[in-house]
Amino acid sequence: MTHEKYRGCIEACVACAQECERCGDACIGQPQMAECVRTCRDCAELCWTCSGFMSRGSTLAAEVCRACAEACDRCAAECAEHEAEHCKRCAEACRRCAEECRKVAA
Amino acid sequence: MTHEKYRGCIEACVACAQECERCGDACIGQPQMAECVRTCRDCAELCWTCSGFMSRGSTLAAEVCRACAEACDRCAAECAEHEAEHCKRCAEACRRCAEECRKVAA
Amino acid sequence: MTHEKYRGCIEACVACAQECERCGDACIGQPQMAECVRTCRDCAELCWTCSGFMSRGSTLAAEVCRACAEACDRCAAECAEHEAEHCKRCAEACRRCAEECRKVAA
Amino acid sequence: MTHEKYRGCIEACVACAQECERCGDACIGQPQMAECVRTCRDCAELCWTCSGFMSRGSTLAAEVCRACAEACDRCAAECAEHEAEHCKRCAEACRRCAEECRKVAA
Repeated sequence: MTHEKYRGCIEACVACAQECERCGDACIGQPQMAECVRTCRDCAELCWTCSGFMSRGSTLAAEVCRACAEACDRCAAECAEHEAEHCKRCAEACRRCAEECRKVAA
Repeated sequence: MTHEKYRGCIEACVACAQECERCGDACIGQPQMAECVRTCRDCAELCWTCSGFMSRGSTLAAEVCRACAEACDRCAAECAEHEAEHCKRCAEACRRCAEECRKVAA
Repeated sequence: MTHEKYRGCIEACVACAQECERCGDACIGQPQMAECVRTCRDCAELCWTCSGFMSRGSTLAAEVCRACAEACDRCAAECAEHEAEHCKRCAEACRRCAEECRKVAA
Repeated sequence: MTHEKYRGCIEACVACAQECERCGDACIGQPQMAECVRTCRDCAELCWTCSGFMSRGSTLAAEVCRACAEACDRCAAECAEHEAEHCKRCAEACRRCAEECRKVAA
């Protein structure tokens, strides 16, 4: 089953999207967190999109996962530079999601 | 915590989005399932969108949940008319999601 | 033709989405613009979503336009309080879009 | 200006998204058009997403354009096999969009 094949990656994307939405919102308005707001938004959007492509078994799922993995890498790198608890959680979720997306993209 | 307040509804939306993506894709190409493809797509898209608004604690979350609940109602009604296993699962997920979204929209 | 019926509103939504994306990004990192970042993002996302629903003639287009009009109102009100050129342009695009969305929602 | 740099591609994406939404909806329920429904939906979704990334000048715009170009190629190839007027229009819009996206992705 297509859906089954992607289960781990869908779960990682959904978890990552939620952390990114939360972290990105928390960082708004803080000058030193500007890039974090941007990477979180991009990452969240691709994670939600990616979840949809995998859920319906799209033949483009691998392609979208590739872009999503890239977004996750950038967001993880950005969040890892900050001390806030939401940044740490977000970085961790991004790393897991990047890993899962790379498996699908391979 | 905003995120916590919405947890049940986010989970229902994410589950519903996945069922709708799957059901909608399975119904493509079948003349008698045309409306099901449409309601599933609309519902999936609003469920993903809604999950994002709630995850970041948007002040518009209630508004988007209202539209999402309407999409869920229509999709549940459509899927309930069909015998396929994916339609039954989808109808059930839509009903749960509509209920959760109505709580948030209230 | 469904698509024709919505032409004016789709154009207003697409124009508004672009202004909101631009304005929201420009405001990131400025403490006094925090709410502007949020309303711009919410509005952009609903404008893109709304454009899709109308483009395919979804029976839920009116419902989504209602939520979008609300997002436009809030973003217009927020942006109208600021002096930046992108805020002024955004407020204007939001007002036009809210008006078009209300016609469809009616 | 970031936004200016992407103007041609944003316009191509928005035009393509609209054609894909319309064509994909028109093909629902026709057994021989099943793949067209799928490629149109995938392509529409990536075109809207891509428009957002470019509008806000995201550093991931090139990455998303790459996935979008791939979606456009597939949708153009699929639609080119069919005689319906909406398929011809869609194929043409997809070809133009793929070309613009490739320029940004380069």
